[in-house]
Amino acid sequence: MPQPDLTAVFAHIDRQRESFIRRLIDYVRHPSISAYGQGIEEVAALLIDHLTALGFDARAIPTAGFPMVLGKRIEAPDALTVLLYGHYDVQPPDPLEAWLSPPFEPTIRDGRLYARGVGDNKGQHFAQLLALESLLAVYGKLPLNVIFLLEGEEELGSPHIAAFVREHCDDLRADLSITADGPVHESGQSCIMFGVRGVISFELRARGANHDLHSGNWGNIAPNPIWQLVHLLGTMKNARGEITIDGLYGDVLPPTDMDRAAMAALPLDVERIKAELGLTALDETLHRPFYERLMFQPTLTINGLHGGYGGAGSKTVLPHEAIAKCDMRLVEAQRADDILAKIAVHVKKHAPDVEFIPDAGMEPSRTPLESRFTEPIRAAIIAAQGNAPLLIPSAGGSVPDYVFTKILGIPAFGVPYANHDEANHAPNENMTLDRFISGIKTGAAMLTYLGAHTDP
Amino acid sequence: MPQPDLTAVFAHIDRQRESFIRRLIDYVRHPSISAYGQGIEEVAALLIDHLTALGFDARAIPTAGFPMVLGKRIEAPDALTVLLYGHYDVQPPDPLEAWLSPPFEPTIRDGRLYARGVGDNKGQHFAQLLALESLLAVYGKLPLNVIFLLEGEEELGSPHIAAFVREHCDDLRADLSITADGPVHESGQSCIMFGVRGVISFELRARGANHDLHSGNWGNIAPNPIWQLVHLLGTMKNARGEITIDGLYGDVLPPTDMDRAAMAALPLDVERIKAELGLTALDETLHRPFYERLMFQPTLTINGLHGGYGGAGSKTVLPHEAIAKCDMRLVEAQRADDILAKIAVHVKKHAPDVEFIPDAGMEPSRTPLESRFTEPIRAAIIAAQGNAPLLIPSAGGSVPDYVFTKILGIPAFGVPYANHDEANHAPNENMTLDRFISGIKTGAAMLTYLGAHTDP
Repeated sequence: MPQPDLTAVFAHIDRQRESFIRRLIDYVRHPSISAYGQGIEEVAALLIDHLTALGFDARAIPTAGFPMVLGKRIEAPDALTVLLYGHYDVQPPDPLEAWLSPPFEPTIRDGRLYARGVGDNKGQHFAQLLALESLLAVYGKLPLNVIFLLEGEEELGSPHIAAFVREHCDDLRADLSITADGPVHESGQSCIMFGVRGVISFELRARGANHDLHSGNWGNIAPNPIWQLVHLLGTMKNARGEITIDGLYGDVLPPTDMDRAAMAALPLDVERIKAELGLTALDETLHRPFYERLMFQPTLTINGLHGGYGGAGSKTVLPHEAIAKCDMRLVEAQRADDILAKIAVHVKKHAPDVEFIPDAGMEPSRTPLESRFTEPIRAAIIAAQGNAPLLIPSAGGSVPDYVFTKILGIPAFGVPYANHDEANHAPNENMTLDRFISGIKTGAAMLTYLGAHTDP
Repeated sequence: MPQPDLTAVFAHIDRQRESFIRRLIDYVRHPSISAYGQGIEEVAALLIDHLTALGFDARAIPTAGFPMVLGKRIEAPDALTVLLYGHYDVQPPDPLEAWLSPPFEPTIRDGRLYARGVGDNKGQHFAQLLALESLLAVYGKLPLNVIFLLEGEEELGSPHIAAFVREHCDDLRADLSITADGPVHESGQSCIMFGVRGVISFELRARGANHDLHSGNWGNIAPNPIWQLVHLLGTMKNARGEITIDGLYGDVLPPTDMDRAAMAALPLDVERIKAELGLTALDETLHRPFYERLMFQPTLTINGLHGGYGGAGSKTVLPHEAIAKCDMRLVEAQRADDILAKIAVHVKKHAPDVEFIPDAGMEPSRTPLESRFTEPIRAAIIAAQGNAPLLIPSAGGSVPDYVFTKILGIPAFGVPYANHDEANHAPNENMTLDRFISGIKTGAAMLTYLGAHTDP
């Protein structure tokens, strides 16, 4: 098939490199921390201004939580329509003392821009916006219809996107969705993601006496909420990594042969991973292979556990409260509500005094590797980045692709732009400047190839 | 036997009530937080000034840690000598936000003085000092020889008192020791304590990757240090409260018949305890009776466990470090070094990657209930407080009485002055003003009775 000519738009992007980087710095300087409700409206307004300037019909649509930013530019009613998804909220930046430069004072060091949210996800959807802007600057029009959906509470688990997509499904009618989020493969190769794990979060709160007690006067007498959590959590996952909640694995689908072949084709350098993370061994959950653990097995992670004394020295106190925050990654065909219900039953059975506080869930999602959109996306990535992307059955992480695959019923693709060591959700989050620029080119190329090669 | 006449000294104490309370307020205003090394020297100097003013030969004696304050007043070489022990360091005051008035701005509310350290132990050894002062004011001399020993690191587990007592045993030669620390029985009755549990503290540090990770990208791959601690701690004590470290109970002596009779004579109102603490149930460790659990069984308390995210909302992070701080109360004939060694073996076996950091220990101590000093102390308490003290085989908590019983080889008695709800080691620590004044009287009475009724 004929290859679209991207010379002009790539040249435009290269000429604008310094300007695009300066504009990214301006963008990530604005905090938009959904966990704290900080700076959300301001960043949504910036996005609407940007989309409107690109000739999009753009607006912030209220939800029960933070607003969705929805922009739409229809070139031709019968053309292919792509839905681009991203999220403009970021993770909380703590622990602040671990940042080498402040999280909202974007700083370039060694070819990387350091700032909270620069990888997850502002640098990536900003690259999509600049891809649209570059296509319009060079050609005066887009090669296909574009719907741009930007969420403001992905880092909270996207509690309202499902209701939003159901309510606005007419406005969101598209042929496929593309999400630029998460990192490229840790080998550095670009990739196409065909799925994500789902996620649920929950808290376990244990309470003892109405105040902290002296461990000598009350040891063996007053219940210790930390011990309660330790014993409860010990019934939920064993030391081999197996989740021991009744029925938890009942709906887990094994990988297909095509999934297994794709996983087998992925590079894997366990020694390098261990060296980078400073680990002597990886978890070997259920003795399954690395990528199967990551893509096809649920997790139970304690995100944080806090109770009692944590200061310097020792303090012989019997604490009165302890809280564990946990998340669980889900795989097809687990359903968030069902798993939360199973955990609730488990907690009630093993520790009836511990409070179980479920948070909103996000379903897992899968798109078959043999989709008709796979080849144009693959070819576009080769044109923009110079090498073929890996085909990855599923990310370990979660974006709400299920609203596309399960509610809109369209295939959903992930094409991440960020470097694998972006340190998302962690201190010193960063994006390499080269990845940012190559993301803009990749966005422009994908839209061009999809417009040229695919019928609606 | 004839009862000494305490009318004059009690009248003196009553006249000085307001002055004594003002001086206590001045005293507890000075922080002396051994965990932070804050204010120690200043408070030691105050004590030396006070003792010197009472005609004591007093000085601060350096140790490898904070100094011991040692004062001595010999009335007659052949008279009975009592060693009074106390500690001038206090617990850290956090969580600060839980205090109704700042911990070092002593405040009187409803007949109680609220301040960090007012109960544990400043208000109590200050009462002893004022008892000495009152006896001297009224009689110009003391009824027996007095050695006053005040430690500056009891809240750190008294790491240097054993070496100190061994080195200065000639200076410390006495016939008995009396410690005013801890609360009276929760029924409100005064008491004589014949023992204490020992204590050891230790930290467990688990480390995962060299930084926090995204729980989706790394769940089932990177080890989670919180899970490591949960699984390790789960092997150390089961949900029934039984410590499951090999050999832990091997040296635990059962109570004697006299101990059992004394425990049976103690009041116990479990419903009131539960109501005061806001609990629906108490721990029923090994199904043993309340006082046996408290006095004759070791404990394993998690004082604090901290790792990962603890802020608002959720954060899907896989943390890189977790630390548990624990203490264990020991009973006769357990030995701190032996128990620490057993824990080290256990940790090495079950979680070799977890760092075990032992802290200094304090041995348990017991004095037989039938000591010749029991009766004069008992009679003095009746004279000062109007009712007979309970005889308590052991406190649940720990003071370093073992240096008296096991190193000096003398009987050691505890006569606590603080109210049972003093909230020591917790926010809003307090001492009732009446208990403080009655402590001064009790101190004066005990010295008088011991001097009158006991030969060296």
